[in-house]
Amino acid sequence: MSTIKPPKRPVTIRDIARHLGVHPSSVSRALNPRTSHMVTPELIARVDAAAKELGYRRNRMAYALKTGRSLMVGILVPDIMNPLFPPIIRGLQEVLTEAGYALIETNSDNDADRERLAVEGMRDHAVDGLIFATAHRHDPLIKECFDEGTPIVLVNRAVDDIEINAVVNDDAHGTRLAVQHLADLGHRSIAYIAGPQDLSTGHRRYHSFLATMQELGLPSDLDLVIVTHAFTEGSGYSALATLLQRDKKFSAVIAGNDLLALGCLTLLEERGLRCPVDISVVGFDDMPFMDRLATPLTTIAIQQYEMGVQAGHLFLNQINNPAAGTRTISLAPTLVARKSTASPRAKERAS
Amino acid sequence: MSTIKPPKRPVTIRDIARHLGVHPSSVSRALNPRTSHMVTPELIARVDAAAKELGYRRNRMAYALKTGRSLMVGILVPDIMNPLFPPIIRGLQEVLTEAGYALIETNSDNDADRERLAVEGMRDHAVDGLIFATAHRHDPLIKECFDEGTPIVLVNRAVDDIEINAVVNDDAHGTRLAVQHLADLGHRSIAYIAGPQDLSTGHRRYHSFLATMQELGLPSDLDLVIVTHAFTEGSGYSALATLLQRDKKFSAVIAGNDLLALGCLTLLEERGLRCPVDISVVGFDDMPFMDRLATPLTTIAIQQYEMGVQAGHLFLNQINNPAAGTRTISLAPTLVARKSTASPRAKERAS
Repeated sequence: MSTIKPPKRPVTIRDIARHLGVHPSSVSRALNPRTSHMVTPELIARVDAAAKELGYRRNRMAYALKTGRSLMVGILVPDIMNPLFPPIIRGLQEVLTEAGYALIETNSDNDADRERLAVEGMRDHAVDGLIFATAHRHDPLIKECFDEGTPIVLVNRAVDDIEINAVVNDDAHGTRLAVQHLADLGHRSIAYIAGPQDLSTGHRRYHSFLATMQELGLPSDLDLVIVTHAFTEGSGYSALATLLQRDKKFSAVIAGNDLLALGCLTLLEERGLRCPVDISVVGFDDMPFMDRLATPLTTIAIQQYEMGVQAGHLFLNQINNPAAGTRTISLAPTLVARKSTASPRAKERAS
Repeated sequence: MSTIKPPKRPVTIRDIARHLGVHPSSVSRALNPRTSHMVTPELIARVDAAAKELGYRRNRMAYALKTGRSLMVGILVPDIMNPLFPPIIRGLQEVLTEAGYALIETNSDNDADRERLAVEGMRDHAVDGLIFATAHRHDPLIKECFDEGTPIVLVNRAVDDIEINAVVNDDAHGTRLAVQHLADLGHRSIAYIAGPQDLSTGHRRYHSFLATMQELGLPSDLDLVIVTHAFTEGSGYSALATLLQRDKKFSAVIAGNDLLALGCLTLLEERGLRCPVDISVVGFDDMPFMDRLATPLTTIAIQQYEMGVQAGHLFLNQINNPAAGTRTISLAPTLVARKSTASPRAKERAS
C-alpha cells in the first residue's frame, strides 16, 4: 500500500473506500463489529490498515445521534479515595473500554443531594446507563432511574425492594468465615461493630454475625454489639471505646469493614491493650497494605476487581439484550488469617 | 408557582418559556452561562426553578454539535489502583464536574500501545482535551496530540521538550528535604534508589539528590546509587539487595517513591536488619497507610488532591482562553518524619 498524505478534512468511510477501490458500504460493514461478518476477513484487514493509515476516526457523535447510544456509562462511587473502589472501577474500565464504552465516574460522599446532582450530570452527558456502587437498601434515586427504564447495574451494594442487576460480595458467607475462624481459635465472647444498617453490606454482615453465633452455639449478647453510622476509622474507634466501657468481657471483635477495624487497632494501642494478646481483631475487605500494618490484619478478602469485571459484563448484556432476566451475581470471599487474631489462651501464656 | 405535570416528551426551552410566559430566547439566554449576563438575575432564578420543576434536561448532544464542545475530558493515569492517583482524579473531578465537564479515565499501565489506544478511544468520544498523568520526559504521543492542537494539561509528571501546561510536585525541593533530614540526624553515607530516568519524577528526584549531597558536603558515591526501571515494591527490594552486596557502608537509604521504600522495608525484615537502627529509610509521596506500617515510614508528602484541583483549573483556563500563555504550577511538598529514620548513633546505643 502506498503512503499517502491524509486529506485535511476529517477522513470519511468514502475516503477509505476510494483508497481501496471498494464500495463505501463494504467499508462501513467492515468497520462495524455488528456487520463485519458480512464481509471477508481479508477485506476487514485491508479496511483496518487503510483506516489507520489515513487517520480515519469513527464519528461517535453521528453514531450517537443515529443509534441513540452514546457509548458512555456513568458510575457513582461513595469516594474514589476509599481504597475499596479503585479495583472495582479498574475492572469495569477493562470490560467497558474493550466494548468501546467510556466510563464517567463521580463521587457521592454518601450524600443524597450530591448523588442526585451526579446522576443529573451524567444524564446531561447522555450516558447509556448507570452503575451504582452507592446503593442504599431503600434508594429513591435508583428506584426513580429504574422506573424511567434506565439500564442499571449495582455493584458491591444491593437494594432490598427492586429486582435489579447486581454484582455483590457474599457478605453473609464472609462474616461466617470470620466468626468460624475466631470460634476455631477458641473465642466464645465475640463483640461486633456493625456498619450502617441502611446499606446491604452493613446489614447482611451484621445479620450473618448474629445467625452464625447462634449456629455455633456461642452466646449472643446485644451488649457486645455496636451499630455505627459510617464505615470509617473514627466510627470504629468510638465503637470499641463504648464496648470497653460496658461491663462485659470479650476476647475478640469483628468489625464490619477494615476501616472500622483500623479504628479499633488505634484505640487498643492508645489504651495500652495488645492485639491479639488482649483482644483479637478481624476486618472485612482486605484493603491494600492491611498485610503491612504494625499488627497485620486478619480480614475477609473480597474480589473487588472481579466485581467490576462482572458488573461490566452484566451492563453490556443488559444493553444488548434488554429482555434478558435480572441477575444477582454473588462472589465468594475468603478468610485471610494474619497476626491480629490468636487463641484467647495466648493471653494466659503472655501474662 | 403551581405544581404541574411534566409532559411525556422531553421538556424543551419552549415548554419553560410557555410556563413562564416569556420568550424562548430569553429562557435560552438565561440557561446558557455565556449569555446569562444578558438577562436579569430574577429571570435566571425563575427559569432555573421552572427548568427544575418541569424536568428540563439540556440536550448535551445538540450542544456538542452546535459548539463543537463535548464537555468531556480524558485523563490517562498509569493505574488507578496505585494509591497516588485517586486523590489526583478526585481533585480533577471536583473542579471539572462543577464546570459541567465529565471526566473519562483510562489506565495505561505505562505501556505505549495501551496509551495510544486509550487516546484513540477518548478521541472517539470527542473529548475537548486530554489530561496526562502518564507523561514521559520525551513523549511522542503527547507531542503528537500537542502538535494537533489538542488542549492538554500534564499532572504529576512533566515533559522536557514541549512548553505545555502542567501541575507538578516540586520534586527537587522534596528530595532536598529528605537529604537534609538525614544529614540533620547525622547520616553521611546515604544510598539512593532512583525511579525510572525517562520520567520527570524519577529524573528530578535523582538529580536533586546528587546536587543536595554536594551542597551539604556529603560524599557522593555512585556505588551507593541504583537506578530502577519501575516505581514498584519489587524494584526497591532488588535494588537494596544489590546495594547490600556491594562492599560499601551506608546508614540510610532514600527511595524515589514509597513503593520502592516498601520494597526496602521488606528486604530489611527478611535479612534480619532493623529499620531505623541498622538502616534508616525515606520514601516519597506519603501514600495512604504509610503512617500505620510496622515501621511508620518517613516520607515526603505531596499535594495530590491539590494537584488535581489545579490541573482542572488550568484545563478550564486553557479551554476558555486558548491564547493564554503556558504555565507550570509547582506545588511544595513537606517532610513527614516518622519512625523509619533515626540518628545513625542509635545503632551504637542499641548494640
